[in-house]
Amino acid sequence: MAFGWIDEQAALRRRAGLVRTLRPRPADSPLLDLASNDYLGLAHHPEVTEGAARAAREWGGGATGSRLVTGSTELHAELERELADFCGVEAALVFSSGYAANLAAVTALAPHGSLIVSDAGNHASLIDGCRLARGTTQVVAHADPEAVRKALTTHDGPAVAVSDTVFSVDGDAAPLAELAAVCRTRGAGLVVDDAHGFGVLGAGGRGAAHAAGLAGADDVVVTLTLSKSLGSQGGAVLGPARVIDHLVNAARTFIFDTGLAPAAVGAALAALRLLRREPERAARARTVAGELHARLTAAGHEAVRPDAAVVSVRAPSPEQAVRWAADCRAAGLAVGCFRPPSVPDGVSRLRLTARADLTEGQIERAVQVIGETRP
Amino acid sequence: MAFGWIDEQAALRRRAGLVRTLRPRPADSPLLDLASNDYLGLAHHPEVTEGAARAAREWGGGATGSRLVTGSTELHAELERELADFCGVEAALVFSSGYAANLAAVTALAPHGSLIVSDAGNHASLIDGCRLARGTTQVVAHADPEAVRKALTTHDGPAVAVSDTVFSVDGDAAPLAELAAVCRTRGAGLVVDDAHGFGVLGAGGRGAAHAAGLAGADDVVVTLTLSKSLGSQGGAVLGPARVIDHLVNAARTFIFDTGLAPAAVGAALAALRLLRREPERAARARTVAGELHARLTAAGHEAVRPDAAVVSVRAPSPEQAVRWAADCRAAGLAVGCFRPPSVPDGVSRLRLTARADLTEGQIERAVQVIGETRP
Ligand SMILES: Cc1ncc(COP(=O)(O)O)c(C=O)c1O
Ligand SMILES: Cc1ncc(COP(=O)(O)O)c(C=O)c1O
Repeated sequence: MAFGWIDEQAALRRRAGLVRTLRPRPADSPLLDLASNDYLGLAHHPEVTEGAARAAREWGGGATGSRLVTGSTELHAELERELADFCGVEAALVFSSGYAANLAAVTALAPHGSLIVSDAGNHASLIDGCRLARGTTQVVAHADPEAVRKALTTHDGPAVAVSDTVFSVDGDAAPLAELAAVCRTRGAGLVVDDAHGFGVLGAGGRGAAHAAGLAGADDVVVTLTLSKSLGSQGGAVLGPARVIDHLVNAARTFIFDTGLAPAAVGAALAALRLLRREPERAARARTVAGELHARLTAAGHEAVRPDAAVVSVRAPSPEQAVRWAADCRAAGLAVGCFRPPSVPDGVSRLRLTARADLTEGQIERAVQVIGETRP
Repeated sequence: MAFGWIDEQAALRRRAGLVRTLRPRPADSPLLDLASNDYLGLAHHPEVTEGAARAAREWGGGATGSRLVTGSTELHAELERELADFCGVEAALVFSSGYAANLAAVTALAPHGSLIVSDAGNHASLIDGCRLARGTTQVVAHADPEAVRKALTTHDGPAVAVSDTVFSVDGDAAPLAELAAVCRTRGAGLVVDDAHGFGVLGAGGRGAAHAAGLAGADDVVVTLTLSKSLGSQGGAVLGPARVIDHLVNAARTFIFDTGLAPAAVGAALAALRLLRREPERAARARTVAGELHARLTAAGHEAVRPDAAVVSVRAPSPEQAVRWAADCRAAGLAVGCFRPPSVPDGVSRLRLTARADLTEGQIERAVQVIGETRP
């Protein structure tokens, strides 16, 4: 029977305790949120939600077509200009998601005959980009510029190195300056996904590439998501104008996808303007992460020192990680839980995200609940 | 130098007259729109834009995380229930785009060792799904159930046939009932992308699968976009509950992507409710398409008889297609223009879309402009 194999897979998953289920939340959830990626606490900011509402009213519920047909509005162009200006790059291009932006950047910048050098800890969307690209992919050890250098020396012709700037599971930062230096020596491009760095790292939240002195470099391309620090939805690719022009002409997830909905553009634009006006939000997210880490390690938890706003706490086993997260939730605290097969290294952990708008009392309560529910 | 090859490609593109550029539109564009995919004329309907605005206010500017972490709201669940109910299927799952929904459906339903039989005219997102899937893809002749049957007989083990219901370039419909019969004989699944059928075909716009008597079949999976007839953004997969559960557990563009923004969910929900209340919109879109086709052929144009709301008009050459579309625009009419490499068959055409809210006068004006600007 069609799809009969699905039942076998489902049974395996049930036996392994690995079934994922959706848990829709109410609008007024009473949970203390340390699970979302709303790092700056902007998703519910009235200027952001009004930005969404106003854009929907003025520009419609959807973009109505591909950006190349009817889907480009002056609002999209405005967001692209302001993102490029803020990050100190020539040009930006907005996509319907960060996932689509990553697929676009990797596939369009790794043509037939090229080499892609990809960090072993990269996000699923970069990995899918590598799989879709015409170039050949070499996966290298995590956060290892020397491994990237070695891989690049095996190849003549176009090459790109691809890396998250802040890895989504452990929240550790990539050695961006070293990666860029290695790429430059070999004439290779560098594509970095700043999903978890933008809004948190760099001066006023300008991101990891800006912090590493790479803003505006002609061999660096940055991808962003509008769905984390900017509290909206969508993605963007930032880089030299000729790279952006190339994406407009060659990236399938740009050409054959409906433009980002005006409401999401309006929300992201409002959030970006807020961040410019209140740059201290970026530093505050980092401070909160540092405090969470300090208190958790002081309480004896094994936590990775955060380079941005993600704090990863080791759990003894997948089952205990799941129970730990569930017990936190029962005690009023939402935390993320990563376990195989979503983690490449097989280590299960709680994933906490710092938000700029967490109060001292909330941080204290979170640490207390995590301690009390510890397996 | 990094990305040096881009300049060569750009030069080739310029010489071939194939450069694509963005043309952001103002909010109050004076153009008569026959280029968008807003088939039911709902993108600017006040109930739809208010649906977006209200959802942003109540639920925030973004979903703040993966649907499996913080990104599922009760609003997402409501849209999924109403979509499933409307289309007569067990369950639905909402994605950040139709593109992501197609990547999910194809990759998750074509595991290692399986066969994918893919129509040669399928949309880029289905093609990318085939490329990403672990199964092996066999591309078959366009709209040819016999070719699908033959391909399926070459394979033992899980198999799916994958097809657009209405092909995006020419607007022709796939032979769904025949495809389903062929698949059933071989125990294969059928995955159909109803991006251009939903809202237009079937009773009250319930879509092509519903029209073909396939609603609720346990071996048929339908993908939708919320960005065309529903005037919003996002995508959905509809099918048996166990298939949807499988996607929640296995589809990378679901698991590793931020949930659809609340505003887009709210707009789609409002549009769906409007369509239920005003089912005549679906028939009206088809009537407008038929009228456009009749008047264009009467005026001597070579146009494909529309099976849904897309009317394709043949142009003599890529250059003339581009000039024709530009001349239409200069005369106040926005039309789409498809030419190589976006069209698989090398034939350039104007692509007109019927909207349910076009008046007789607007249809007449459109046909007149197309005639006057004819190359
Ligand atoms: C590192 C990284 N890149 C890309 C994405 C995808 O972005 P989006 O959710 O906006 O599609 C995510 C998470 O969702 C991510 O964590
Ligand atoms: C047939 C078809 N499938 C899928 C898509 C992708 O949907 P979305 O634009 O919502 O990502 C499109 C167009 O955009 C399409 O024409």
